[in-house]
Amino acid sequence: PPPVESKLPCSLEELYTGSTRRMKISRNVVDVNGQLVQESEILTIDVKPGWKKGTKITFPDKGNEQVSQLPADLVFVIDEKPHNVYKRDGNDLILTQKVSLAEALSGTTVNIVTLDGRDLAIPVSDILSPGYELVVEEEGMPITKEPGKKGNLRIKFEVRFPTRLSSEQRAGLKRILGG
Amino acid sequence: PPPVESKLPCSLEELYTGSTRRMKISRNVVDVNGQLVQESEILTIDVKPGWKKGTKITFPDKGNEQVSQLPADLVFVIDEKPHNVYKRDGNDLILTQKVSLAEALSGTTVNIVTLDGRDLAIPVSDILSPGYELVVEEEGMPITKEPGKKGNLRIKFEVRFPTRLSSEQRAGLKRILGG
Repeated sequence: PPPVESKLPCSLEELYTGSTRRMKISRNVVDVNGQLVQESEILTIDVKPGWKKGTKITFPDKGNEQVSQLPADLVFVIDEKPHNVYKRDGNDLILTQKVSLAEALSGTTVNIVTLDGRDLAIPVSDILSPGYELVVEEEGMPITKEPGKKGNLRIKFEVRFPTRLSSEQRAGLKRILGG
Repeated sequence: PPPVESKLPCSLEELYTGSTRRMKISRNVVDVNGQLVQESEILTIDVKPGWKKGTKITFPDKGNEQVSQLPADLVFVIDEKPHNVYKRDGNDLILTQKVSLAEALSGTTVNIVTLDGRDLAIPVSDILSPGYELVVEEEGMPITKEPGKKGNLRIKFEVRFPTRLSSEQRAGLKRILGG
């Protein structure tokens, strides 16, 4: 019989740090008298740091049984829950940071909380032109196959322009920017 | 026999103003003796203002002839050549205008040449925040089915930030923008 697949939604934090998930499953089993009975069991899945959406974990023969058939395999497929702050792009993490125009032009410090709860303060003195991307190495997702290694964190900036400017402000900006 | 299709590449200017295209075609024709002979002919296509990519013009029976078969139809399919300045989006035209940060903040005049060669000077006093779109009504593509009507021209802005700023400039900008 074809394997029984079921999704295992994981938070990005979980896929970052790894976790142990215990799943209670109920399934039909053929007993010694050839009768179908329900049985429940607890399966343990070790979610490894860096696992990606689509990773499959197979429990052989743990699907439903039927009289005179081999039991099916039970397969869990890792799914990634959307995150409020970070987007994942392969091994990289992408974060969009809102900054004011003044910050974009005169510098700022980006304060972020990593997926494992550390506070990072990243000073930025470059001019944050549209499309500018700040790459913080080794602050992306762990790479499962290369323990200890991580992808990059890429910070994009959304520059908020002022919604109104007085004619004095306009004149002053024009004078300073020389445009 | 299936119709013979051939592409007719048109510039955006041509699709804006309309044009008359004369196409010399050569084709096989069965003569009175039942022999295949080559014949050439000039076909005229009136490209109508507002025609879109994919518009088909059919010349019945103008494809190649073969002995003891009906002649095929000849079909021209309008194709739109890429334009340096304008992109088409249905009946709208889209143009991306580069402006300096000073212009984005303190106002500017956008000078453009329309597809029929008119000069337009469009004063802009709004603050050109990222994503800002200026809509100029009735300066898009003609709408074939509604003669006299046109879509809109949508102007997007690419704001060029200065590549470097002195610390005095930075301080001045911060003071004016109050960030």
